[in-house]
Amino acid sequence: MKFSERINCCSQSPMRKFHSDAELAKSRGIKIYQLNIGQPDILTPQSYFEVICNSIQPTLAYAPSPGIPALVSKMIRYYKELGVDYTPDDVLITAGGSEALSILMNCILDPGSEVIIPEPFYPNYHAFIETAGGVIRPLSTKVEEGYAYADKDKLETLINPNTRAILFTNPGNPTGVVLSEPQMRVIADVAKEHGLFVIGDEVYREFVYGGEQLLTIGMYEDIAENAVVIDSVSKRFSACGARIGALITKNKELRKNALKLCQSRLSVATQNQIAAAALYDLKQDYFSDARNEYKLRRDTIYRRLLAMSGVVCSEPKGAFYVMAKLPVDNTDTFQKWLLTDFQFNGATIMVAPGAGFYATPGMGMDEVRLAYVLCVEEIETAMDVLEAGMKVYNQNQN
Amino acid sequence: MKFSERINCCSQSPMRKFHSDAELAKSRGIKIYQLNIGQPDILTPQSYFEVICNSIQPTLAYAPSPGIPALVSKMIRYYKELGVDYTPDDVLITAGGSEALSILMNCILDPGSEVIIPEPFYPNYHAFIETAGGVIRPLSTKVEEGYAYADKDKLETLINPNTRAILFTNPGNPTGVVLSEPQMRVIADVAKEHGLFVIGDEVYREFVYGGEQLLTIGMYEDIAENAVVIDSVSKRFSACGARIGALITKNKELRKNALKLCQSRLSVATQNQIAAAALYDLKQDYFSDARNEYKLRRDTIYRRLLAMSGVVCSEPKGAFYVMAKLPVDNTDTFQKWLLTDFQFNGATIMVAPGAGFYATPGMGMDEVRLAYVLCVEEIETAMDVLEAGMKVYNQNQN
Repeated sequence: MKFSERINCCSQSPMRKFHSDAELAKSRGIKIYQLNIGQPDILTPQSYFEVICNSIQPTLAYAPSPGIPALVSKMIRYYKELGVDYTPDDVLITAGGSEALSILMNCILDPGSEVIIPEPFYPNYHAFIETAGGVIRPLSTKVEEGYAYADKDKLETLINPNTRAILFTNPGNPTGVVLSEPQMRVIADVAKEHGLFVIGDEVYREFVYGGEQLLTIGMYEDIAENAVVIDSVSKRFSACGARIGALITKNKELRKNALKLCQSRLSVATQNQIAAAALYDLKQDYFSDARNEYKLRRDTIYRRLLAMSGVVCSEPKGAFYVMAKLPVDNTDTFQKWLLTDFQFNGATIMVAPGAGFYATPGMGMDEVRLAYVLCVEEIETAMDVLEAGMKVYNQNQN
Repeated sequence: MKFSERINCCSQSPMRKFHSDAELAKSRGIKIYQLNIGQPDILTPQSYFEVICNSIQPTLAYAPSPGIPALVSKMIRYYKELGVDYTPDDVLITAGGSEALSILMNCILDPGSEVIIPEPFYPNYHAFIETAGGVIRPLSTKVEEGYAYADKDKLETLINPNTRAILFTNPGNPTGVVLSEPQMRVIADVAKEHGLFVIGDEVYREFVYGGEQLLTIGMYEDIAENAVVIDSVSKRFSACGARIGALITKNKELRKNALKLCQSRLSVATQNQIAAAALYDLKQDYFSDARNEYKLRRDTIYRRLLAMSGVVCSEPKGAFYVMAKLPVDNTDTFQKWLLTDFQFNGATIMVAPGAGFYATPGMGMDEVRLAYVLCVEEIETAMDVLEAGMKVYNQNQN
């Protein structure tokens, strides 16, 4: 039996590739501080569970393929508060932001089509783009330049007849970069001028720590046909396991095409949509509490990383990740060693090695992404482990 | 902006294309008997909802990408009762059978790869196969031959170097065909001899009305590497809105590749998996009650269709669909007319026009699929409406 070329090329997630080494370390009694995966520990609002319990139906039927109207209208209200007017025809509910991306890429990519993405980027973009036959055209950025990417010249250099879209994560995963309005406008203008889709993966929108205004690529009326917003309740409401997201666009033809794929998979889970709608009734202080907690964590991890000899990193402004250059030769080897040969006071640490966040071969070998999803005390201890680990690892190497 | 060629080619679901005409008819006060969609009205077991309510977690986290171990082990126990031994490494939990098919096709199809499917077939196979770049190679069957397809010669005629798989729905949607064990063995042998995947979409397994043994393509040890089972709780437990399915195979390389895509979309909804596990604890009489009810409906609709002048149909042995040839020129036009220009005692009927179930152009124009998902009394009335409709429609045509 044959397998598809693209699945043979698809590599394992850098966040999950050391799972079996981690299991072995745990079986030896070692505590592992997991900074490799963006699974927040913030409590899910109880209203989600209450509504699930109250949404019992005699027959648990398929939801409408585009999504349950109550959830769609709550999302529209949410965007109205951000200053963007959507109608129910602009929103398709999906199984997380992941499904929204997968449906979108199948609508807009032919074999060989290109999507420009600033690198480092969220590694699962590979699967969504490559299963649709597309290719990632990376816009390389550097830690020394704060991973900046909103640059007209840099973007235009990458555009060719195969280019279909520019995709960016804002606030950024893995970099924590948050676009200013003028920066977002730069990207919007390039998309407009070249007739490209511009895709904002904005699932971390609320997670900004410098008092920035909450922005969305959907706010520019002059690129309403180009703009696509990927959204999700996973991070916003700490409800990753609900698997509720959305594909939002005013482009009627994109909507019509995406709906075909929504119909082909029938629907998104019914009760989960009903309960997700209730999340949008939470008061603003829900967000400010979560934001304050993450800001403390961000400050802690950034302070600790800066203080480590040889570590280079740029202050993350949003999301809950920080990318750091470590003074080790290869962070893949280093991570494996941390799990197989190291412990510090009975503990070790998991991070996501950097190479998997780049499309350009050879890049990111000395970088890691750290997800600051643990409480401040645990982050402090995890940083002690990391600092000690680098020291021992480099002594062993020499 | 450009769209992909394959999404432009993707047509609308024949089950859902008359949605707006139906809404207009409803707004005129007309009652519609909906036999177009396979949404069962059987009650969902209460244990599903009870477990959902008891699965409240402080943080609703991602489930493991391959699925929650408790659900996987319940499915393994279920298959053990059918005589098939699986291990946890053979089962991947998916968002319904739909996602299982989508993941599978992305793993096994390159551009131009072919999948042999007996036609008429479930129209959403188009989307799963064509978004993965593949092509459906239909094995044409006829109502006059009971839509039989398990024929070595017919299958082998369609095999060429691009063929990657044989896919069949058993029990059949839309035909209600149920394979005997020797028939299933014929397909297994062809797949084995030609090194093809053989995919059994077996989501209707329990819905057989002649006392047939419950079978699965996974039961043949000599084709363990070829066989893939698509499964779901949607129909089995009348839990369509849970969106829980599975991709089951002993082929380690397929498992490894499919897992990459499972990881890229992170996970299936957490509570839904926990609750679906409880469904597998239901006693056997749950199935026999549902089966008895559907058998009554099958008997009713088949008897009524047979008694209508000019209607040709073959007794469906399983699932909850019947395909019928009607004495009208074009069932698409006829369905539209039923919604826009007809009523019988204030009611009309929706069925799924047949052409959408065929890949061969021009086939199925005078056929419809009827889903017997209404109670016996409603089916009787719906058949009165259909019979009267055909009479008036044909008088108008002459």
